[in-house]
Amino acid sequence: MADTYGKLFRITLFGESHSAAIGVVIDGVPAGISLDLDEIGREMSRRAPGKDAMSTPRKEADIPQIVSGFFEGKTTGTALCAIIENTNTRSGDYEPDLLRPAHADFTGKARYEGYNDYRGGGHFSGRLTAPLVFAGAVAKQFLAGCGVSVCAHLQSVADIFDEPFDACAPKMVEKTLSARELPVLDESVIEQMKQAILSAKADGDSVGGCVECAIVGLPVGVGSPFFESVESRLSSMLFSVPAVKGVEFGTGFAISKLRGSEANDSFYLDNGEIKTRTNHNGGLNGGITNGMPVIFRAAIKPTPSIAKEQMTVNIAEMKECSMRVHGRHDPCIAHRAVCVIEAAAAIVAADLLLEAKSYGK
Amino acid sequence: MADTYGKLFRITLFGESHSAAIGVVIDGVPAGISLDLDEIGREMSRRAPGKDAMSTPRKEADIPQIVSGFFEGKTTGTALCAIIENTNTRSGDYEPDLLRPAHADFTGKARYEGYNDYRGGGHFSGRLTAPLVFAGAVAKQFLAGCGVSVCAHLQSVADIFDEPFDACAPKMVEKTLSARELPVLDESVIEQMKQAILSAKADGDSVGGCVECAIVGLPVGVGSPFFESVESRLSSMLFSVPAVKGVEFGTGFAISKLRGSEANDSFYLDNGEIKTRTNHNGGLNGGITNGMPVIFRAAIKPTPSIAKEQMTVNIAEMKECSMRVHGRHDPCIAHRAVCVIEAAAAIVAADLLLEAKSYGK
Amino acid sequence: MADTYGKLFRITLFGESHSAAIGVVIDGVPAGISLDLDEIGREMSRRAPGKDAMSTPRKEADIPQIVSGFFEGKTTGTALCAIIENTNTRSGDYEPDLLRPAHADFTGKARYEGYNDYRGGGHFSGRLTAPLVFAGAVAKQFLAGCGVSVCAHLQSVADIFDEPFDACAPKMVEKTLSARELPVLDESVIEQMKQAILSAKADGDSVGGCVECAIVGLPVGVGSPFFESVESRLSSMLFSVPAVKGVEFGTGFAISKLRGSEANDSFYLDNGEIKTRTNHNGGLNGGITNGMPVIFRAAIKPTPSIAKEQMTVNIAEMKECSMRVHGRHDPCIAHRAVCVIEAAAAIVAADLLLEAKSYGK
Amino acid sequence: MADTYGKLFRITLFGESHSAAIGVVIDGVPAGISLDLDEIGREMSRRAPGKDAMSTPRKEADIPQIVSGFFEGKTTGTALCAIIENTNTRSGDYEPDLLRPAHADFTGKARYEGYNDYRGGGHFSGRLTAPLVFAGAVAKQFLAGCGVSVCAHLQSVADIFDEPFDACAPKMVEKTLSARELPVLDESVIEQMKQAILSAKADGDSVGGCVECAIVGLPVGVGSPFFESVESRLSSMLFSVPAVKGVEFGTGFAISKLRGSEANDSFYLDNGEIKTRTNHNGGLNGGITNGMPVIFRAAIKPTPSIAKEQMTVNIAEMKECSMRVHGRHDPCIAHRAVCVIEAAAAIVAADLLLEAKSYGK
Repeated sequence: MADTYGKLFRITLFGESHSAAIGVVIDGVPAGISLDLDEIGREMSRRAPGKDAMSTPRKEADIPQIVSGFFEGKTTGTALCAIIENTNTRSGDYEPDLLRPAHADFTGKARYEGYNDYRGGGHFSGRLTAPLVFAGAVAKQFLAGCGVSVCAHLQSVADIFDEPFDACAPKMVEKTLSARELPVLDESVIEQMKQAILSAKADGDSVGGCVECAIVGLPVGVGSPFFESVESRLSSMLFSVPAVKGVEFGTGFAISKLRGSEANDSFYLDNGEIKTRTNHNGGLNGGITNGMPVIFRAAIKPTPSIAKEQMTVNIAEMKECSMRVHGRHDPCIAHRAVCVIEAAAAIVAADLLLEAKSYGK
Repeated sequence: MADTYGKLFRITLFGESHSAAIGVVIDGVPAGISLDLDEIGREMSRRAPGKDAMSTPRKEADIPQIVSGFFEGKTTGTALCAIIENTNTRSGDYEPDLLRPAHADFTGKARYEGYNDYRGGGHFSGRLTAPLVFAGAVAKQFLAGCGVSVCAHLQSVADIFDEPFDACAPKMVEKTLSARELPVLDESVIEQMKQAILSAKADGDSVGGCVECAIVGLPVGVGSPFFESVESRLSSMLFSVPAVKGVEFGTGFAISKLRGSEANDSFYLDNGEIKTRTNHNGGLNGGITNGMPVIFRAAIKPTPSIAKEQMTVNIAEMKECSMRVHGRHDPCIAHRAVCVIEAAAAIVAADLLLEAKSYGK
Repeated sequence: MADTYGKLFRITLFGESHSAAIGVVIDGVPAGISLDLDEIGREMSRRAPGKDAMSTPRKEADIPQIVSGFFEGKTTGTALCAIIENTNTRSGDYEPDLLRPAHADFTGKARYEGYNDYRGGGHFSGRLTAPLVFAGAVAKQFLAGCGVSVCAHLQSVADIFDEPFDACAPKMVEKTLSARELPVLDESVIEQMKQAILSAKADGDSVGGCVECAIVGLPVGVGSPFFESVESRLSSMLFSVPAVKGVEFGTGFAISKLRGSEANDSFYLDNGEIKTRTNHNGGLNGGITNGMPVIFRAAIKPTPSIAKEQMTVNIAEMKECSMRVHGRHDPCIAHRAVCVIEAAAAIVAADLLLEAKSYGK
Repeated sequence: MADTYGKLFRITLFGESHSAAIGVVIDGVPAGISLDLDEIGREMSRRAPGKDAMSTPRKEADIPQIVSGFFEGKTTGTALCAIIENTNTRSGDYEPDLLRPAHADFTGKARYEGYNDYRGGGHFSGRLTAPLVFAGAVAKQFLAGCGVSVCAHLQSVADIFDEPFDACAPKMVEKTLSARELPVLDESVIEQMKQAILSAKADGDSVGGCVECAIVGLPVGVGSPFFESVESRLSSMLFSVPAVKGVEFGTGFAISKLRGSEANDSFYLDNGEIKTRTNHNGGLNGGITNGMPVIFRAAIKPTPSIAKEQMTVNIAEMKECSMRVHGRHDPCIAHRAVCVIEAAAAIVAADLLLEAKSYGK
């Protein structure tokens, strides 16, 4: 379903960039979880724009109001709905007939026969990642009680790379990373990344980047073969995040250049526990967790909204023309995507973990 | 569901490497499709091993028997089941207590509490891609009637690369590629790739590779935002194929190094039809087809079964030990994966197309 | 999924009787439907309580606020969310430890480990049928454009029966019925039904009833065999409506007393169109529509909330005790259920019709 | 999905009356269940026709061959496929252009654009209940290990009624009932029922009946509100069984004639366990099990195939005509449906129980 994800921990997104509100229904959240609302607020503010020159100056309060499924400080187990009002919208900025390149203007119009709400990208807007982050924050609080944690860092901006996660023992330091100007493991790359972003901004342009994420603490035996492989479930969610164009697990595309003798993660015993010495397979064999960290990366394309002149088509007049995307845009969204990727991973991990309980894990 | 994929064109896989049979049920295949059984046989033989020194000498007849859903040469519209008998099995080759590195021995045991059929990898075996290819062959015949074609080539073996698809106009020459010793666009790389494979084989080792695939002919407006994005649907299926560790669309991971002004595919008019001049987004904006070819790549890891000595754990004795994987193995599976990736893409495209009919496409 | 129904026209309910709000997300509603908000308001008011002595004096404004998926008077095609604020709640009325007989107090506590919101029945409250009616009103407006209409009447209250629908040509006079004091075809039974309800009320008791519903205008060939039979899809939705304990199609349970020669609806030609002379099968053969009206009935149990003393268990003290259910209750809900059953049927019909478009209907 | 049912314990049916084979894939069956194949054979033979004058003289061996998911006497946890060959088919008996009344000839043709396999009813044939019974037999063996049992009896044939189940303590004596000439609790009604069936047969006609079923041993708290209510899940499966036209839980339709004070099942303590004194709600409150037996009834219509002359339409010529259904038919299928209803209930109970494990039951 377009806006519903999950089998047991299920989320349903709704809203458009300029509708009265956006939000999410989480159905299947286990009962009795004490939600730390301050912590949820902290997660929301990680995604919020307008904090510095590297993101859009557009301010969004993004305060989710929980309207159901929450009673006396705990989840009730029935559908939890959170709503975020859209307060800061400038509808005047949009010209619906000019198809913005690399946006969903053309495809959205075709898909919905011209009836989609085009303002600010409508339902395709990156704003819809706000309720996703909310749902991820709820999932994380459930996962924390199960000993599972999720942490992502900004792996790259343009061609500037952060140090990679240690695939066998990633530093799960989300709060440390969040406190930094950019969520990187190696603080020394911040300045360069910042320059890449600001230089693109100065050119009326944008840059892309990659996010690397680790899920630690899932028991051995979570997931299923084929269509329910952990890779299938995670990728399906990750490619739902606007701007993601690639997903890879473990060594990913680079594994295609290794020989089997290098790529095969050999098993050993670590205090009686079976582990692998390397983690080229990203903690997953046959689609199922092997107890090692689940590691993956997502490629984020450069923000399609740029001030630079671009060629396009006016679809009402069916004429080619040039355009500039006006409004308040992010010169880079990769750093803001870090918490979104984490949220997406947490939602999937929660769903997988609940299903694993049904078969005794 | 682990073994069921799809919303309207749904496939359910079953079988283990050494069970009596493997097979697939296709439910929701449109009624009245004249199946060309010779063509299906040709697709099956593309995947079949034992053809040359580059794949396992294990012979598998792999002749699917259609037991339902097919009447007077046409699909009936009700569940079509095809069964492939397992005839060439050597169960003696397997030692269930030795966890083969990078295989699903450990995770399968954990997931199924030790009751999984370990022989030949059981349900995790690459053999299960045979019914997938069958289902893909059926999907392709449906798609052909809708003007949609799917074609993949072997993009790389180890570090040897074929020429890439022209993203705006890929050569849809599946039959030409299939006739070659390796399914590459540039015949001049075959010899090098072959050497890479045979040299790994000579070392008792294996190599990986990548597959690039194009879907051409899907109308504008197929797919949906978020969890039903074409990327979500395709990736979820592609990561079901054993050994796939990365999936990327359009320019994929490399798009993260581009600026927006480069990555944004600008629109133009081509004889009154809206097209994009470049195709960095792989034919997809906002998760929905824009009429350009849908292009993606999948990374295939080196075959985990290698003759070389490897370190592992004997899980019955909980002791570290060394092992060699005996039996008849492929030194590379990337070239055999080409038709599997095509089949996977065809299944998803058929499902998406049927759903698109429900909203008027 | 507990709170999500449907394959292509999907609804997700949320909310509890005393939460901040209740509501529904409709995902997959076709784009471009002009919603008549007055008509939706009229449907909502059919369900609203507090109109006369036969229902609870509790007033609920029940004005749904559409927060997404609606733009310039039309559906956008993306998730449409409507929210209804809970304004008239008296939380003091509830004693959570006394298990109200025939309510979900005990099962809800068990299912959600005691964390469910018990006030007013929480998520199990009949109030959740308000968003269902909203979704049904949207579905009806889509169906109307396809020539499909849905109409139900109050078939019985206690042992007083309205005249039945003519199974081959039911009177589709919803507006006429809604204007009556009770929604019956034969006005002469109103007084008796009213007396049955008011007499139960006077005794601190309640009565049940049945609702009969017809869907007219579905084309031949909608639905599928087995698990997607129209009966399966409708019943699954109808039994979601609180208090429904039986569902039957066509002649229903009474068909078990007929002989085949009576029950078999023989075919004839009516101006070149294939019809059946009788409609014992309720317009459905093999789970698929045959073009005749789809007719079904739902049994509604007497309101479980009664003023009379009842025996029960105090679950905190694990002691038997007597109790009276205080608060403002309906002596009968069958008449208020008429519009809920219609809404439920409309939602399913919309979903089935969209799927039928995928196979050319 | 038309041919796939279930969330965690999922079955996929395939086959037509005259195709090479029919069968079922069960995906999600827990690993390590020792299947008693003799017991499965016994269940299959309960459904098998040709045993006496009350059912069709057509003999069907109906021996399921398990081709996957079963290893060393136990389920592997991966998809279990069983195939039943169609051996005893007489295709000459069918005239595809004559629409048999109350059969799916007309709707099947419309649904599948004339391409459906019409022989013997094709995919709509009651023969498809054979793989359903197989799947139910597997489900029962899983349930038995969880202390859950399922038992049905023939509640009525025409207007002759067996004694009803004691709703609070039904006799779970499936094997005793199966040994009788008709599966009834009160042996004294057998002769009358038999006469009703044989008298209809003598008239070239058929009779219907009802089946009553109980599920005992489900823990408190299984199921969910609304669309996942136990009633929704069970009815959706039960209406998949060909010929079922009504489903009711607990007191069912008759509850609509009770007052709340009668219908409300009051709670009491039985050795420290919460129970209800009556069971008008069929063990279900708010869609969730309350620990009492889950009781329901299904109405089975008279066999539509009758020897008597009937009026119909020749769809090729679009002319009205008379016809007689030739071939070997059952004068009643209600008694043969008893084991099918049990199987259907067992499949749903297994699925619900697995899901309940995910939330700690």
